[in-house]
Order: sequence, then C-alpha cells, then structure tokens
Amino acid sequence: MTEVTVFGMGSFGTALANVLSQNGHKVLMWGKNDQSIKEVNENHQNTRYLSDVTLCENIKATADIKEATAFADIYLIALPTKAIREIVTQIDQIITSPKTFIHVAKGIENNTFKRVSEMIEDSISPEHNNGIGVLSGPSHAEEVVIKQPTTVAASSKSAEVSQLIQDLFMNQYLRVYTNQDLVGVELGGALKNVIAIASGVVSGMGFGDNAKAALITRGLAEISRLGEKLGADPMTFLGLGGIGDLIVTCTSTHSRNFTLGYKLGKGLTLDEALNDMNMVVEGIYTTKSVHDLAQIQHVDMPITNALYGVLFEDQPVDKSLEYLMGRDKKAE
Amino acid sequence: MTEVTVFGMGSFGTALANVLSQNGHKVLMWGKNDQSIKEVNENHQNTRYLSDVTLCENIKATADIKEATAFADIYLIALPTKAIREIVTQIDQIITSPKTFIHVAKGIENNTFKRVSEMIEDSISPEHNNGIGVLSGPSHAEEVVIKQPTTVAASSKSAEVSQLIQDLFMNQYLRVYTNQDLVGVELGGALKNVIAIASGVVSGMGFGDNAKAALITRGLAEISRLGEKLGADPMTFLGLGGIGDLIVTCTSTHSRNFTLGYKLGKGLTLDEALNDMNMVVEGIYTTKSVHDLAQIQHVDMPITNALYGVLFEDQPVDKSLEYLMGRDKKAE
Repeated sequence: MTEVTVFGMGSFGTALANVLSQNGHKVLMWGKNDQSIKEVNENHQNTRYLSDVTLCENIKATADIKEATAFADIYLIALPTKAIREIVTQIDQIITSPKTFIHVAKGIENNTFKRVSEMIEDSISPEHNNGIGVLSGPSHAEEVVIKQPTTVAASSKSAEVSQLIQDLFMNQYLRVYTNQDLVGVELGGALKNVIAIASGVVSGMGFGDNAKAALITRGLAEISRLGEKLGADPMTFLGLGGIGDLIVTCTSTHSRNFTLGYKLGKGLTLDEALNDMNMVVEGIYTTKSVHDLAQIQHVDMPITNALYGVLFEDQPVDKSLEYLMGRDKKAE
Repeated sequence: MTEVTVFGMGSFGTALANVLSQNGHKVLMWGKNDQSIKEVNENHQNTRYLSDVTLCENIKATADIKEATAFADIYLIALPTKAIREIVTQIDQIITSPKTFIHVAKGIENNTFKRVSEMIEDSISPEHNNGIGVLSGPSHAEEVVIKQPTTVAASSKSAEVSQLIQDLFMNQYLRVYTNQDLVGVELGGALKNVIAIASGVVSGMGFGDNAKAALITRGLAEISRLGEKLGADPMTFLGLGGIGDLIVTCTSTHSRNFTLGYKLGKGLTLDEALNDMNMVVEGIYTTKSVHDLAQIQHVDMPITNALYGVLFEDQPVDKSLEYLMGRDKKAE
C-alpha cells in the first residue's frame, strides 16, 4: 500500500484516484472547488466531471495544499498544462523532502515549447525531485471509471519511475505498458489533440468517415514528422500514446477536443463553443505551440496551420478542408 | 472520354461506375442479377446495394459478358476475391486484344495466398495483359456516391497504369494519390478487414472506445509485421491504404466487416450473423489466409489468431479479448 496525492479533480484525475484506491493505495485528492471536495468526502461522487459514478469510499479530498503535500511522497499531477507551473511551484515551496511526480497532462507550453515533464522539472528544486514520469494513452476517464478495458503507456527518464507507475496503476482492466521514449509519449498525447479538434471540425461541417480517415492519416504523418524532429522515436507514434490515443480522441464523443472542433464545424465561434463546455480544451493552446514550433523547426504541418487559422485568425472553417482536397499533391 | 467496363454490380463497383460517368467516361456495368441490371437501365438505381441513390443516366448494365468485354479496353474488376479467377478466366477466353485491369477487391486468396493482382495475372493470357492496377483506401461506397470528400491510393507495377487510374477517377471529391508499393497497397486493404471484424467483436461485446483504440493500434502493428515480411514497404501501412482504411473500417457503421464482428460479439453464430447480411464479407476468407500465412512466415499475429478461433474453430468470442488484457506483456 502506498499513499498518493492527486492534484487536480477533473475527470481523469478522479478516474485515476479511483483506480489507485481500487488497487489498495491510500488517496487524497487536492482541488480548489469546495463543492467537488464536499461531494467526494460526503457522497463519494464528483458529479461535475463524472456524473452517475460512485467513487471508492476511502478517497478523501482537500483544498489545503499543505495537507495534500504532507500526505504522500508520490504526486499524481492531473492538472491542465496551463496550471502546472503555478501549482508545482507552490508545492515546491512547501515540501522539504524529495517527491515523485507522475503527470497525465497532454499539452506543450506556449512560447517555451516545453513538455509537461520539463515544466515540472523547471518548477521544483533539484533536492525535491525524486523522478518525473507520465501516464498517457487511449483512456477516456468515463470508461476507465466504469472498468472498461483500457491500455496506457508509462514513461520516464528513469526506468524505476516507469516501473513504479506500472506497479501503481496496473490491474485487470487497466493495462500499463512501459515505454522508454519519454519525448515521444509526451508529444504523442499533446499533438493528437490538434488533430482531434480538426477531426471534429470536419465532422461538424457534415463530412463523412472517408474524409475523417484521410484527415487522421495525414494528421498522424504531420505530428510524427514534428515529433521526430524534436527527438521522439517515430515508432512511438504508432503505439498506444500515438495512433492509439489519436484514434480514440478523433472518433469518440467523449473527447472534449473533438467536441470543440465539432461545434466550430457547425459554425459556432470559438467563444460560443467554449461557453457550451465546462472543461479545459488543451488542444487550443497546444495548437498555438505546435504552429509556432513547426515554423521554427521548418516542419510542414498543413492541418495544424489550417486549424491555427480557424482558432486564432478568424479564418472560416471551410478553409480548413482545402488542404485535404488540394489539387496539387499527386503522389502519396 | 474513355470507355470502361465495370465487372461487378455491388456497392463499390456501382459507386465507381458513377464516378467514371461523372468524369465524362462511358460506362457499361456487367453483372448476373437481372433485377439489378433492369433497375440500372430503366430507373438508374441499384437499390439492393445503394438505396435512395440515383445514378448517372448514361450508365448501362448487361448480363452479356461478350457485350461487356467488347465495350472497352479498360476493365474495372469490382468482384469479391473469391469470384475473380472464374470471371477473369471467362473474360480471357473471349477477348482477342490486350486490356487494362483495375481492381478494387480487398482479399488474399485462400491456400495460394495470392494478392488479387496476382490472381488476375494468373488468369489472363500474357498477350491480353495490358497492365494490372489497384484502387484502394478509406472509401465507403455510400459516401463516394453522394460526393463526400474521399482520398484513395492507386498502385500498379506499371507507373503508366497508376497514372491512368489517377486520371480516370480523380475529381473534386475523389482524390487519387499514386503509390509505388503495389504489395503494400493490396495487403493493406485486405489485412485491415481482419482487424475490422475483431474491432466489431470488441464493440459487440460492449467494450468501449479505449479497448477499440488499443485493438486497432495492436492490429496495425501485427498487419504491418506480416506485410513487411511479404515484401511491402512498412510506410504504406501508415498511409491511406493502411491506417486510413483501417480506421474507416473499424469505426464506421458502413463497414460490413465491422458489422459482422459486431453481431458475433453480440453472441450470434457465424451462420446467424451472415444470414442477417446481404453482402460478401471479405474479411472471413482473408482471416483464414492471414492465419495460415502467419504460421508459414512465423509472424506473431495474436488478434488474427483469436479471430480465426472464433470464425473457424467455434471458440467463444470472449477469448478474443484475452490477448488484449493478457498479464504477461509489460513493455510496449
């Protein structure tokens, strides 16, 4: 039995807290929403993100970051990419011993272009850093929490941390595979959100499965190109954290990135689409990072560029399909 | 303007006949079903396969194979793999000049393990062979015929034939990319049907998107392994005829292979499931070929083997999921 503090009370953090508790570990969740904290503690629910689900009774929640940091030596960071630096810096100012950080965020920081493990590394003092790892793959929280069979990849610069992640989370319905390519696993999770929004746009515009399959195929090619340039093993993009996560995000109605794109494809503005949703859509920020990175790295990313135009330059969505049916390119 | 005879009056043959006609070519369809022939000639419909669709008025149909062979120098072979040898041999006995054969069949012959272009090459006299090519990719007929944007790959041992296929079919909604890897394009189209049936089984059993994404990811890995062993370029499996076609077949309700698997997953026997459907399900025969080939080539294909057990050895479907959640494999 191990203690784990879960920072973040969104859908995936909650689902993984439940996995950890079912696996026999002691779990404390930390968040800022008093209503959600009260619900977890009193009703064993988090209805804002996972309605109709009853969580393990021994999962507790708190808004007190001192209590949260003191509870465990392993922290699961299940926060939006944008919030990582602020919260991890706060954690670092409180703790006095080394901790292991496992994150599940799927983003790339704007402007610095850092992966989430790099953001965490930046934010904690070396003497508090007992290893950083990531858990990623095709794993909608809504399915994990009802014990639907799910497979994910665990990665870290440290083989010990990868192994720890596997040991903590693995069970009959959640299979965890270790993967040595930390860069690839983190980038796969982040980059696929860009393609997922684009896939939603195409569907929202009324295009069919043939067009969506073409978009996913080309999307995989362009994110693999960028990933390789950034030091990832291209084979990782063919694994669970790459094509696996891409497929589930581009074809499932559970995906918030796909859903945002769908609303844009239906003609809503970005503000209108976001007002309709109550979750963070990581892919929006990632699209900016990826667009900027592609320019710096001189990588051709037509889908990302088209989506960037829609999200940040008020381009009409029908432009985003132009590349797909472009007349010039003739060999695959 | 070019004349093309389309052999086969199923859904994809009919949709492509319509594309050819819209592109300004003269099209004669050949088939054996008098009712369908009458419908095409009198009502410009083929309701058995594409209900609610009105075809171009100048598409004609005939049951007379002599009329069909005399009509054109280019033949589009849109027949089930099992019927190819018999019909092409018949054609060969009638014709007296070289013809170009373009096929759209997605299978591997049982026992001989030949690809469809090899089956055609076997069946025609060398002096009648003016080149053989394939058109493949994520292209549900139901979407092509209503002009939904679709992308496909054209391939042949002859660059001229690939170019001809591109010139014949390419238009605003159907984009044709040439691909030099004939082995890979043909195998991609055939092998993905095996994974599509398995994907249907998983969905029919009530498993979710996470499990399906894992299955598709591993399915792609195993069909790529076999493809490479058989001489295909592994990159082809990442293109339209590989992952593109795999995604569309595993996630679309239009797919007959997925639908068959879904019925099996729901508990129907193979006979019961087939009785429910009015189309040829290529993947059943392909599963046998691929299973046998994998043994000969010593390629590890756990999904194919599990499905083979369900289809040909009366194994219960829940066995087909065992590999996915197997306890032994720990690194990706």
